[in-house]
Amino acid sequence: MANFGFSRLAVVAPYEEHWREAKSAVGASDLLQNAKRVERLTKAVADCTLVIGTGTRAHRKPEQPVIPLPELAPYVGAELARGGRVALVFGPEKRGLTRDDLSLCHHLVEIPTHPRQPSMNLGQAVAVCLYELAARAGNSVAAKDPVDIAKLVLSGELERLAAVVEKTMLAANYSPAAMREANRHDLRLLLRRVALTGQDARRILGLFRRILWRLER
Amino acid sequence: MANFGFSRLAVVAPYEEHWREAKSAVGASDLLQNAKRVERLTKAVADCTLVIGTGTRAHRKPEQPVIPLPELAPYVGAELARGGRVALVFGPEKRGLTRDDLSLCHHLVEIPTHPRQPSMNLGQAVAVCLYELAARAGNSVAAKDPVDIAKLVLSGELERLAAVVEKTMLAANYSPAAMREANRHDLRLLLRRVALTGQDARRILGLFRRILWRLER
Repeated sequence: MANFGFSRLAVVAPYEEHWREAKSAVGASDLLQNAKRVERLTKAVADCTLVIGTGTRAHRKPEQPVIPLPELAPYVGAELARGGRVALVFGPEKRGLTRDDLSLCHHLVEIPTHPRQPSMNLGQAVAVCLYELAARAGNSVAAKDPVDIAKLVLSGELERLAAVVEKTMLAANYSPAAMREANRHDLRLLLRRVALTGQDARRILGLFRRILWRLER
Repeated sequence: MANFGFSRLAVVAPYEEHWREAKSAVGASDLLQNAKRVERLTKAVADCTLVIGTGTRAHRKPEQPVIPLPELAPYVGAELARGGRVALVFGPEKRGLTRDDLSLCHHLVEIPTHPRQPSMNLGQAVAVCLYELAARAGNSVAAKDPVDIAKLVLSGELERLAAVVEKTMLAANYSPAAMREANRHDLRLLLRRVALTGQDARRILGLFRRILWRLER
C-alpha cells in the first residue's frame, strides 16, 4: 500500500495475536499504526460509495459485473472524479471473500492469472491491484468534477436501508423463514445494482420506516 | 511467475541451503524444479536478445533508458513479435542489481512507486512486473513476424565480442590499468546501445580476433 501511495487500511476481525505483533513490530509504518480495526466488513466500507471485491476466479458464479483488472481504472477514476470514495476488498488468503462479503460489493475485479495457477498470494494480489490503480487511475485522484455528496450513496446508508427493508419483509410475512437468507442476499445485490442517489436511498428508507411502523402496531 | 504464465526461471548464485530447501519443498511447482541455476548473470541471459533490468530507482544515476513499467509492454511485445527472447532481471532484495549486472541490460524498467516508500518487496515487484507484461504484452507472445534469428543478437554473443575487444584494448595498450574497469563497463553499455544485428556482431568479432592475433604475435 505504501509503495503505491495508499494509506487508508481497514482490517476486519483480525486474529488478535498476529494483529498486535504486526502493529508493534519495529518499523511498522504509519499505515499499520493508523489502520482501522473493525469487527465486520459492513463497518469497514460504511463511508465508501463504490465497493469492489477481489479474488473471484475461485468457486462460485459471480452475481455482479466482473471487471478484468486492466480495465478497472476508468471505473475507479470516474468515481473519484465525482468525489466518491472507493474501497477495494480482499479476503483471507485461503478461502477468499464469503458470499456475504460479496453482497456488499458493487463490482468484482479479476486479476487475469494463468488457468494453471489462478490462486495468488494475498500480498502480491494487493500489490498488483494497487500498482494498476496508481498507474492508471491516479490522475483522477483529485476530484475534478465533484458532485454534491448528497447525490452519492454511502455503503453504510445502503446497509441501513437493507436492514429496514428486511425487517419490513419479516413484519409483512413476505417470505417463509427458509427464504430469508436468500432474500437478504438478493436485496443487498439489488440495492447496489440500481445506482441510487443518496436522496433516493433516504426517501426509500423513510417510506419503509413508515410501513414498518404501521406493520408493527 | 506461475500466476502469470511465465515458466523460465534462472537463479544466479543462490545461497546453497535456501535453494536446496526451496527446490525440495512440498508443492514446489515445476517452475522451481526446472529452474536453471547458474553462477553468473551473463550465463543466465546468454540466449536472450533483450535484457531489462529492474529496481533502478535506488541510488545511482542510470546509464540506459529507463522505461516506466506502464509503458514497457510495447518494447517487450515488439521484441517477442520479431522472434526475440526477453529477460527481466531482478536483484537481491536488499541491495538490488550491481553496476556490473546493469551493464548487461539494454533498458531499465522502473515501477512507479510513491516517493515516501519507493523500495518494494521482491516478490511483489516480480508480481507487478509480470502482471503488467501478461496483461499488456501477452498478445504478442506468439511471434507474428519473426525475423531470421541471425538478425537478432544474443546477449551471449555481445559478451563474447566484449571479451575480445577488451583483450584487444589490453594488447594494444589502449588505456592505463586504472581505466580498465571503466572502459569495460562503457564498452558493454555501448554494445547494447547500438542495436547490432547478429551478423554485425559476428563480423566485428572476426575483425577484432584478427587484430588481436596480430597484436599478440
